[in-house]
Order: sequence, then structure tokens, then C-alpha cells
Amino acid sequence: MSTTPEIPAELTRLRASIDNLDAALVHLLAERFRCTQQVGVLKATVGLPPSDPAREEQQMSRLRELAAEAGLDPVFAEKFLGFIIAEVIRNHGTIAQRATIPDA
Amino acid sequence: MSTTPEIPAELTRLRASIDNLDAALVHLLAERFRCTQQVGVLKATVGLPPSDPAREEQQMSRLRELAAEAGLDPVFAEKFLGFIIAEVIRNHGTIAQRATIPDA
Repeated sequence: MSTTPEIPAELTRLRASIDNLDAALVHLLAERFRCTQQVGVLKATVGLPPSDPAREEQQMSRLRELAAEAGLDPVFAEKFLGFIIAEVIRNHGTIAQRATIPDA
Repeated sequence: MSTTPEIPAELTRLRASIDNLDAALVHLLAERFRCTQQVGVLKATVGLPPSDPAREEQQMSRLRELAAEAGLDPVFAEKFLGFIIAEVIRNHGTIAQRATIPDA
């Protein structure tokens, strides 16, 4: 039987890096949603549907390639983008419902 | 009945920004998983469990605050971190299974 091990200094160091990266990720995601919010308003205004399968397929394909180059699991990158896009489409649907669009 | 609208120039501009942000996100995620990969090896070596609920609660709480400051939905930030951590724990479990740990 062993006692709970102490947290090694190396783990503390790695966690500080992870916390920095998470702060950067949160700020980039905030900026991304600022862009997609504008896209949502624009789409609702001109009557484009919230979802665009052709654009999403291009994004998936590009992110898989970027992920492979960066050493990130491309399957995970695809799941990640799917996770983000699902949220964006939910937001766009809400924007479209709120918008008053002539002939829509 | 209306024809499919053309893609407005503004939408093209916003999509270029989104693509740049996605490239940055993929590279940050790649770096984050490089860190958590090292954490996984370290934990397996010293016999720490893959999951650490106290650390995760600290991360959740911090990210919710950072998200609120950055104008990102804190609930989404929490879902995002949960999504990432689930992947990390899967990877750590795999690392732990592969590692040969004395007394583990």
C-alpha cells in the first residue's frame, strides 16, 4: 500500500504552461465567436441558412491538414471543429429567430 | 420564391478571420496536448491517477472567469474544457496502460 504521491515540480511547471495555453484558447474562442456572431447577423439579414455544409467540409478538410502538420490528432481536430460549429449553429438559429427579415 | 443569395463580401472577410483563428486554435491545441502528453507520462511514472478532480475544478472555475472577462459564454467555456479534458484523460489512460510502473 502506498500513500498518495506528492505533486512533482515538473507537473506544477507543465500545469502553468497548460493554464497559459488555456487562457490563450479562451481569448481566441471569444474572438472566433465575435466573428461568427457577425456572420449570424449577416446570414439572417440576407436570408442565408445558419448551416453551410460545403463551407464546413472545407473547414474540416483544412483543419485535418493543419492538425497533422502541427502534430495534433486530425480526428480530434475534426471533433473539435464539430463541437465549435454545433455551438455556432445553435447561436445562428437563435439570431435568425430574433431577426425581422422582409420576405423571410 | 427566392433564388439562393450570393455570398456577400463581408461574409468572405469574416470567414478569412475565422480561418486564421482556427489555425491559431489548432496550433495552441497541439501545444496543449504536447504538455498533457508529458503530464500523462509523468503521472504514469509516479503512479498518479489520470484524472484529478480538484485540479479540474480549479481549471473550470478559472476558465469561467476568463471567459466572462473575454465576452465568451462561461457555460460554453466550461463545456469546451470538459471536451478537452475528456480527450486528455482518454490519452492518459492509454499512457498508463502502456507504462510499466513498479508497485502500480
